[in-house]
Amino acid sequence: MLAAMDVLGNPSSVHAEGRAAKAMVEKARSQVAALVGIDRNEVVFTSSATEAAELACAGHRLTCADVEHDAVHVHQVHALPVDAGGEVQKLDMGDGDLLAVQGANSETGVLQDNFRWAQLGWQAGAHVLVDAVQLVGKVRTSLGALGADYLMMSAHKVGGPKGVGALCLKLGVERPALIRGGGQEMGRRSGTENVIGIAGFGAAAEAAQRDVADGRWARVEKLRNILESALADASNTTIFVGKEAPRLPNTSCFITPGWKGETQVMQMDLAGFAISAGSACSSGKVKASRVLQAMGYSEHEATSAVRVSLGLETTEDDILRFAEAWTQKLRKHEARAA
Amino acid sequence: MLAAMDVLGNPSSVHAEGRAAKAMVEKARSQVAALVGIDRNEVVFTSSATEAAELACAGHRLTCADVEHDAVHVHQVHALPVDAGGEVQKLDMGDGDLLAVQGANSETGVLQDNFRWAQLGWQAGAHVLVDAVQLVGKVRTSLGALGADYLMMSAHKVGGPKGVGALCLKLGVERPALIRGGGQEMGRRSGTENVIGIAGFGAAAEAAQRDVADGRWARVEKLRNILESALADASNTTIFVGKEAPRLPNTSCFITPGWKGETQVMQMDLAGFAISAGSACSSGKVKASRVLQAMGYSEHEATSAVRVSLGLETTEDDILRFAEAWTQKLRKHEARAA
Repeated sequence: MLAAMDVLGNPSSVHAEGRAAKAMVEKARSQVAALVGIDRNEVVFTSSATEAAELACAGHRLTCADVEHDAVHVHQVHALPVDAGGEVQKLDMGDGDLLAVQGANSETGVLQDNFRWAQLGWQAGAHVLVDAVQLVGKVRTSLGALGADYLMMSAHKVGGPKGVGALCLKLGVERPALIRGGGQEMGRRSGTENVIGIAGFGAAAEAAQRDVADGRWARVEKLRNILESALADASNTTIFVGKEAPRLPNTSCFITPGWKGETQVMQMDLAGFAISAGSACSSGKVKASRVLQAMGYSEHEATSAVRVSLGLETTEDDILRFAEAWTQKLRKHEARAA
Repeated sequence: MLAAMDVLGNPSSVHAEGRAAKAMVEKARSQVAALVGIDRNEVVFTSSATEAAELACAGHRLTCADVEHDAVHVHQVHALPVDAGGEVQKLDMGDGDLLAVQGANSETGVLQDNFRWAQLGWQAGAHVLVDAVQLVGKVRTSLGALGADYLMMSAHKVGGPKGVGALCLKLGVERPALIRGGGQEMGRRSGTENVIGIAGFGAAAEAAQRDVADGRWARVEKLRNILESALADASNTTIFVGKEAPRLPNTSCFITPGWKGETQVMQMDLAGFAISAGSACSSGKVKASRVLQAMGYSEHEATSAVRVSLGLETTEDDILRFAEAWTQKLRKHEARAA
């Protein structure tokens, strides 16, 4: 990204400075394609996975579960139920012509079997969108082999900058452009490219691919499990959401009924830990998580949930300090509630 | 931007890291608003001016001239003619309900009187869009006083990074969101914010406002005029486009009939100068400029045009070296053509 800051050219210009900018974008396209094992010409850079979802869903009728991310869920015309573990169990397209089943849930980390759902979707005559935002760069998987019509990704979820994403369009699949003008991205998405951000996405994709190949997330999963054991030891009312389902290695979502998630976020923030309540909307106001309620949790339970995400740099010491601080806050909460 | 790289939080998160990211975005919003003299709540950050145009124009019927930028022109339903100087002379809304008259042309630098056209547009019952991309940060003007319904800007045209823009919506004006999901930007534009790019836009806006106030572009205008004199001395067939019209201080567009713009770009690139032919589309292929043809130039003339843009760091020595190199290439062209 620092190198890209020194490239002043516009990727659409034909002079040397323009070609240098274009080369950076095209290198990143190859890096992002390699992360998921697709052809580089299938990658359309966008400003976010949200824009990618809008580009994929426009003109379709979307069937998806209520556990999908807002960016996908906003397009829903027919809802699929999920079980208590957060997994879709049965396909019913309703009047939808596009099926989305997320790779991994952003709040609970629960994984869905994208290969199975894609096959079922196609058998039902639907197009298939895979929201791979939370999945790529954490779970070893060659999503390219899946052959989804649409696959969406976000740079900042693989360690890149915020404000960059990609929609992967299977070769031969075309969408009417959402943003028209100069004809960048092969006419699929106009506007001068975010060269610095795209360069960062590419570099992060390459690093993420290496980290997955090196099994670095297995260590994180062990730490996540240590965390959950420590919290369970401290509180026998705490529920670990999706614990029995396949999950991302770095996510823990837990409900301590009666202790508001919003309060936990603030208390842990004061203790130096950045965690999230079930769902944070852009106004900073916390609503009861739609995802948790779709899994059968009550509104009371859903408002008592928090999510902890671990990173590759998280240490066992971090985990133990977190568990200690959380337990102290819990004791205070229990004392007040008593 | 470097400081923003160290801020890992998501502006929608309520913990300290999230608040730090949000503070950066909101500081930039104030800086961008100050550049054009509008309320900070009127600024909606987008990924480009192209996205801003799409957001402004969707659902409207656009009346504009053929000299508008592709991002605006793609929405045209009714065309306004321009004179040989590139200026719109007469308003005829046709069946349009939205009027766009650009602040300054990207190829010729020709300025339009936005205040006059806005008044005429409103008198005709139309909404008004001002494409201020090329204008802001170069010409002293308080566009906020204009009160346009929509005003679009691009970060990289005021010295910021590529891939960031803004649509300014006059207080009270609302648009259906083009990109829906998490509800960022007060629900007007969803997707995690490009914090690094937005921070750069803000810093660049503040610097650009200072540069305009300090009159730094007056020096550039003198250099541009020295350049045109030197080229005119070397070639009595060269036409300086829009020379009699009010123009940006840093732009020179000139036609040397019979010497292809595309060739000039390549020859000057080899000599170390980055210039542009009339219009560069994203494929790198050069088409005859629609803008120049709208001004009455023939296709032959339009394909013989190049544009030189000066910056605040351009020196008189740069200008004289350019004129010398260009004259040498011209002589070779003349020798081949003879």
